[in-house]
Amino acid sequence: MNRDELLLQLEIDQLNARYAAALDERRFDDWPAFFLEDGRYTVQARENFDRGLPLALIALESRGMMKDRVYGITQTIFHGPYYTRHVLSPAQLLSPEGERIRAQTHYAVFRTRPGDASEVYNVGRYIDEIVRTPEGLKFARRTCVYDSEMILNSLIYPI
Amino acid sequence: MNRDELLLQLEIDQLNARYAAALDERRFDDWPAFFLEDGRYTVQARENFDRGLPLALIALESRGMMKDRVYGITQTIFHGPYYTRHVLSPAQLLSPEGERIRAQTHYAVFRTRPGDASEVYNVGRYIDEIVRTPEGLKFARRTCVYDSEMILNSLIYPI
Amino acid sequence: MNRDELLLQLEIDQLNARYAAALDERRFDDWPAFFLEDGRYTVQARENFDRGLPLALIALESRGMMKDRVYGITQTIFHGPYYTRHVLSPAQLLSPEGERIRAQTHYAVFRTRPGDASEVYNVGRYIDEIVRTPEGLKFARRTCVYDSEMILNSLIYPI
Repeated sequence: MNRDELLLQLEIDQLNARYAAALDERRFDDWPAFFLEDGRYTVQARENFDRGLPLALIALESRGMMKDRVYGITQTIFHGPYYTRHVLSPAQLLSPEGERIRAQTHYAVFRTRPGDASEVYNVGRYIDEIVRTPEGLKFARRTCVYDSEMILNSLIYPI
Repeated sequence: MNRDELLLQLEIDQLNARYAAALDERRFDDWPAFFLEDGRYTVQARENFDRGLPLALIALESRGMMKDRVYGITQTIFHGPYYTRHVLSPAQLLSPEGERIRAQTHYAVFRTRPGDASEVYNVGRYIDEIVRTPEGLKFARRTCVYDSEMILNSLIYPI
Repeated sequence: MNRDELLLQLEIDQLNARYAAALDERRFDDWPAFFLEDGRYTVQARENFDRGLPLALIALESRGMMKDRVYGITQTIFHGPYYTRHVLSPAQLLSPEGERIRAQTHYAVFRTRPGDASEVYNVGRYIDEIVRTPEGLKFARRTCVYDSEMILNSLIYPI
């Protein structure tokens, strides 16, 4: 791996950090802009991913669907409030596929409910296809493959 | 973001790693030297931070105050012993303000008490103002904004 | 620390990420190849490490011993299945010793058992001696020093 390839890690780390900060600081309206207009966001259990099954907890196929999701989260879904905190490993660079940068990042998301201790909420890995655009790196595809079979209550906010 | 700005992430990651190692290896006497002489260290609940309230759990405004704190921790406070372990995301670079480097880093601190399993202790983010000095990067200001409203027992060691 | 030294962090982060991915994706047969032929892998409680005691939970002194271990894990040991997920801090570079790169990395390993929530399994730090070979960076020595005195049940998979 040459120096330019190595430096890509830094760019992806910065992208991941901005993404995590937007979610954890509850700037949900900023979330769809991390993706291409026709970007895909999928949240899938590891068991289904490993077996190649299409079943996913969440599967959004455009920014428009992501905006609908954000509207649902912030305006219509009734749920108990909680804070999230993403802690991420440095990104692992995978071999590129044509124009697309491929990377994988292990994550842990912690949840804190009012008046309660923080707890492990969801752990897994992001599997990403990233494209360089005039507005910076964007996700063509982000798949969140989670280990946690039992999602504590329901998953409301994006991972 | 150009290459030199990107490389800053590595310098801050190294600073963060040394800081975390000093605390987790209980070299508390080394801790004040991570700050400028008039550096500020604040530990604040997210709720207060988000509302702009000044109320903080800990607010130290010089190395001298930090040394007093370390003396208190190591010499005078009676408390049950525990180990800490910091796991940090790569640092996120924020736009600089004059001479000051600004960065933010998500953290998880785990606690292990003798004979017990490790547990999530405190999660949140560091919000930092960093200055380049002849002795390397130093914190002009480190604010630890924690999600965890209920601090498990009392917080003894620095975050 | 000059630029070339800083860039080493990226190489070690990539090594750590590949290592963690191999374990968490259960590609255990790939694990010994992260080490030199006479590489050493040790898992030791922090208490023993800090006191300089030799007692270790696991001490393997060659790839051959690691392969035996993998055989044991995958073929002979009866145990309840679980998933692991490593989340790692960026690597901290330590001063080199001759030809060997020295680094230390804080880790958290989460465990997920079928139908259960994810939990903190083991936290600590890797203390590494790394050698550059024609096949890339390899561990001459990886010591996993864990804080968690009470290992939840028994530790089956490598850390």
